[in-house]
Order: sequence, then C-alpha cells, then structure tokens
Amino acid sequence: MLNFYVRILGSSSALPTSQRMPTSQVVFYNNTPYLIDCAEGTQAQLRRFNVPMLKINHIFISHTHGDHIYGIFGLLSSYNLMGRKSDLNIYAPTELESIYSTVLNLNNDELKYKVKFFPLNPKGKVLILQNKHLSVYSFPLIHSKPVWGFIFEEKQKDKNIIKEKIEEFNLSISDIVKIKKGEDFVKADGEIISNNLLTIEPPKPRKYVFCTDTLPVKSIKKYIENPDLLYHEATFANEHKDIAKQTMHSTAEQAADIAKLLYAKKLVIGHFSSRYKKLDGLLREAIKVFPNTVLAYDGNKISVGEDDIKDDKNDLEE
Amino acid sequence: MLNFYVRILGSSSALPTSQRMPTSQVVFYNNTPYLIDCAEGTQAQLRRFNVPMLKINHIFISHTHGDHIYGIFGLLSSYNLMGRKSDLNIYAPTELESIYSTVLNLNNDELKYKVKFFPLNPKGKVLILQNKHLSVYSFPLIHSKPVWGFIFEEKQKDKNIIKEKIEEFNLSISDIVKIKKGEDFVKADGEIISNNLLTIEPPKPRKYVFCTDTLPVKSIKKYIENPDLLYHEATFANEHKDIAKQTMHSTAEQAADIAKLLYAKKLVIGHFSSRYKKLDGLLREAIKVFPNTVLAYDGNKISVGEDDIKDDKNDLEE
Repeated sequence: MLNFYVRILGSSSALPTSQRMPTSQVVFYNNTPYLIDCAEGTQAQLRRFNVPMLKINHIFISHTHGDHIYGIFGLLSSYNLMGRKSDLNIYAPTELESIYSTVLNLNNDELKYKVKFFPLNPKGKVLILQNKHLSVYSFPLIHSKPVWGFIFEEKQKDKNIIKEKIEEFNLSISDIVKIKKGEDFVKADGEIISNNLLTIEPPKPRKYVFCTDTLPVKSIKKYIENPDLLYHEATFANEHKDIAKQTMHSTAEQAADIAKLLYAKKLVIGHFSSRYKKLDGLLREAIKVFPNTVLAYDGNKISVGEDDIKDDKNDLEE
Repeated sequence: MLNFYVRILGSSSALPTSQRMPTSQVVFYNNTPYLIDCAEGTQAQLRRFNVPMLKINHIFISHTHGDHIYGIFGLLSSYNLMGRKSDLNIYAPTELESIYSTVLNLNNDELKYKVKFFPLNPKGKVLILQNKHLSVYSFPLIHSKPVWGFIFEEKQKDKNIIKEKIEEFNLSISDIVKIKKGEDFVKADGEIISNNLLTIEPPKPRKYVFCTDTLPVKSIKKYIENPDLLYHEATFANEHKDIAKQTMHSTAEQAADIAKLLYAKKLVIGHFSSRYKKLDGLLREAIKVFPNTVLAYDGNKISVGEDDIKDDKNDLEE
C-alpha cells in the first residue's frame, strides 16, 4: 500500500516553547509532501525532519493568524535561493496573497518561480485539489477569523484481479482493465462470469482530516465520516474551558467529542497552550471520551489508516 | 565587573540548516539583553536559550533582508500575547517600519504596547542609544542594500577609591564623589593630595562591534579601534571569494583582515553559507591571519573583554 502519513512540524499554539513550534505539518502520500500551515520556523523544521522541501508543490493555509503563516515569507524567499523552478500552489484565505506579496515587494524579493494562488471558498465542502491519488477538500470551521479545515482523501482504487483467473479465462489486457473497473466478464460462448468471482475488493480509501483553530463544530459531520486519522486542535484543558470558548478554541475533551462523533479511527491532538508544561492532563481528558488519542509533538509521524509506521506514542518526550 | 557578553541565536546565512538558524544575537550587559537582528525563528531561539524575552527593550536591525527580519512579526505578536506593557525601541532602516506595520495591520494584530521606531542614519558613526552603562553607535557598511554595523561601548567608569585612604584622610561622601571623578584632595591645612595617590584607574571600557552582511570595509577603522570583541560575517571560504564579492559578502580571511586592522582582541565569525557542512576550513583561513578567532554557533556565549565566560570554543559541535 502506498504510504500515507502526517509529520507534525509544530505542536504549540501561538507562543512557541523551547520544545514546540507553532502550527505546521506535512501530509505525505506516496512520498509526496503536502504542507499544511506555515508557522514561523517551518523551513527550519522541514530541514530538521528531512522533508524534501523542493518536492512541496502544494501549501494549504487554514487561516491567517500569525502563528499559522509567519513562516511563509522565509519559505518563499528560500525557494528563490534554492533555485526553485516549478510552480507552487497555495490554497489559502484571500488575504494571504496580499500579506506575502506586500512583504516580498517591500523587501524587493522577486520570486523566480510562479506562485498559483487559490483563495478558499467559505461555503461548505469544496474540492480544491485532485490528482491521481488524492482528493483534497476544504470546509469551514469557526474561529475569530475565517478558518478552514482540510480533508485528504485517497481515491477509490480499482479492484484487484485474482491472478489465477487471468489464465483460467485467458483474459486480455483490455478484459482486465474492464474487470478491474467492476464489469462482469462475458466468455466467447456467452456465459457470464460475475465480477466478484474475478476480483478482490481494493482497500477502503484512507482519509485524513485536519481541524485547525476552531470551536468544536458538530455540523462538520455532514462533510466527514469515518476518517482514519483526525487532527483536531486542543489548545486547552477542561479547567480552562471558559478561556477556550472565549478565544474560540477547543479543549482536549471537545476534540475527543468530535472524533467520536465522526467515528474517527484515531485522533491526534495539538496546538497546545504554552501554559501547560506537561500534557498528560489533556491526553487523559481526551482518552476518557475517545481512547485512541495521541498527543502531537514536533517531529512525530502518524500513519493514516493501518499502523505500518510505529513512530507515534502516547507519552510525552518531556 | 558587570557582565558583558554576546549570545549567538543564529549563525547561518539566508538558508537555515538543521543546526543553524539565520542571523540574530543578544548582547547582554549587566544581565540586560539587547537584541541584534531578528531572523525567522528568533523568538523560539530566545526561549531555547533562556533569554528573558520581556527584558528586551531595544532591538537593533542591521538591514531588511529577510534572513535578518522575518522573525519580527512573530516576536511583536507574541509580546502582545505575553502582556507586554513597556515600550519597545527599534533602531532599524526606515523601511522596516512599514514592513512590520503592514503585516500586523493586514493581520489585524494591534499591538497593546508602544513601539518607538528610530530610523538609522546612513551618514557615519551615529550615537543611537545611551544609558547609565552603555553607548550604542551605528555605522554604515556596504552590501546589496543599505546596511549598518553597531558598536556597544561601555561607558568610562569613575576611578576606584583606595579604601584605606578614606580613613587616613577622613574623607566625606562629597569628597569621595569628587575624588572618584578625578579631583585632587585638599586637606584642612591646605596640603594637596594628588588624585593618583587616592585612586586606582577604573578598568578600560569594553567594546563590542557587530559587522553584519558586508563587503570587507577597511574605512570603518575611522569609527572603531581596539574592540574587545568583533563579530564579522564570513559567509564564504577563500575558494568562493568571487561569489563573496558578487553577492557583497566577506570571506573568513577578509573578516580576519578587518579584525587585524582594527586591533581587535578577539574575532567571532558567523553567517556561514549553508554549502559548508564543516566549518574547519573557514576557521583555519581566518586563524592564519588573526589567531584569536572563534566560530559562531547557535547558542554560544562569548564574553566581551576578559574571558570570565568559558563557553566559547574553537571546534565545531557538528
């Protein structure tokens, strides 16, 4: 199966700590990296965790709070120095374009490659990128400024043909293509062989959902069901539930509620307030509601779907 | 003696490496931190190296290339979140003000404390800050955009009175104040005691000079002599002397030439191109010309004047 995992680059909320940088992460599918959010320090974290920077062709920005975007200037500039030639696609709130253009212009930093900018649409679930392997959707969340989550959904693969059947029915390449798409096979004598006798169902498409800074929004259930992995911000512990509401963030328990509601297989919580020196409390509060929860930490790798990557852990390195 | 040292926060040139961040550093005098340059990641480095962030009241920016300023947005925003109340003084090229104001405005990030902005003057050596302990001067260097170096000079201290003389001549507080300023003492019977019999010379004022991105500029000798510590950029090795000239940077050897010319006591070189995995070569080239040279690395602490801080080293951690 093609690899599909998330690499956390920053797990802190607005204020970095000595251990945690603010939000950014990379989704890898088949070794291709997709960047989500670009906090200050992202380019350094990309190097630290050996992400092939020039292979990033798509950047998704959830909202324009500084702790999610202040790494974009440096990254775009560095691509210049690194001799980037290929287009860079940015999917972001409309205002991001003027923010980075203004800074680069004021700084006379003319990019030698093309940036294609795609403003996010605040109305519902929108398909924003599609390629051979993946469909990426945006959907609105609720925070103190317009904010989006993202769904990375694997495309439905063709059925797998049972090898012995190729010889048994002397199937041609063109027969095989049709059968893999789900057609029955008609023998020369007119006998019909049902598709399910010739094929094995492909694995279920895997799905990753990223929920950035937001109040817990139950209505996203209409866009998402059964994600293999859900990232949900969990800035606060229960004891600071009021501050969470006031600043339009979520608690760890609320993140777990959402994971349960969506029938997620696994939850990773992040965007922790720097007030918490230890995160055991947040983890415990989430696990009570949704047992398969892990804490994000800078550098961890979390597989989407089957756990072929044994890199994530429930305890803290601190 | 009051402590006076430099803490390197970033020792790389424009592209960060997994070990080195771009330029910023803190000058400490009597435990008060002064920030020079503010590359992307500065606030995280300040935390990493336990610099008391809210004690920074003065920021000096050498020029507006991204690798020296892209941390300013995050730092100013974070001060908001940290509840900063005291004024922040920024000494920088004129255009910096519009760069950070534009970003913060576009991002609706209104600062709840006052930033006092002091544009640097390109004409010669200029006194830009003076307090009880220090005088700070700017002076022009030569790079692909307007660029300044900084001199941190300790103020001349009063003479130290020899304790035994207080009793011997029954000196009053007002006598002592005058004697410390250099006056002779006149006894009741009219006999004059020469000042040099009553006092010990204070230590020579210590001096730190920061030379950021620049061609080697010999004419700075008219502004600076005998610095205790000189930081000079050394982006390139001799083999890339042509690129150094073309990009208006210095080689390690040229940095050493400047240290020799200024009769510096010690040289620290930094702003290394990310092309060099090992920096032994650059160090060797500098030491040939100026033996008391050390390499900057992220986190090192280098004393200005006497070596009471044994934290700098000549070899690399890599």
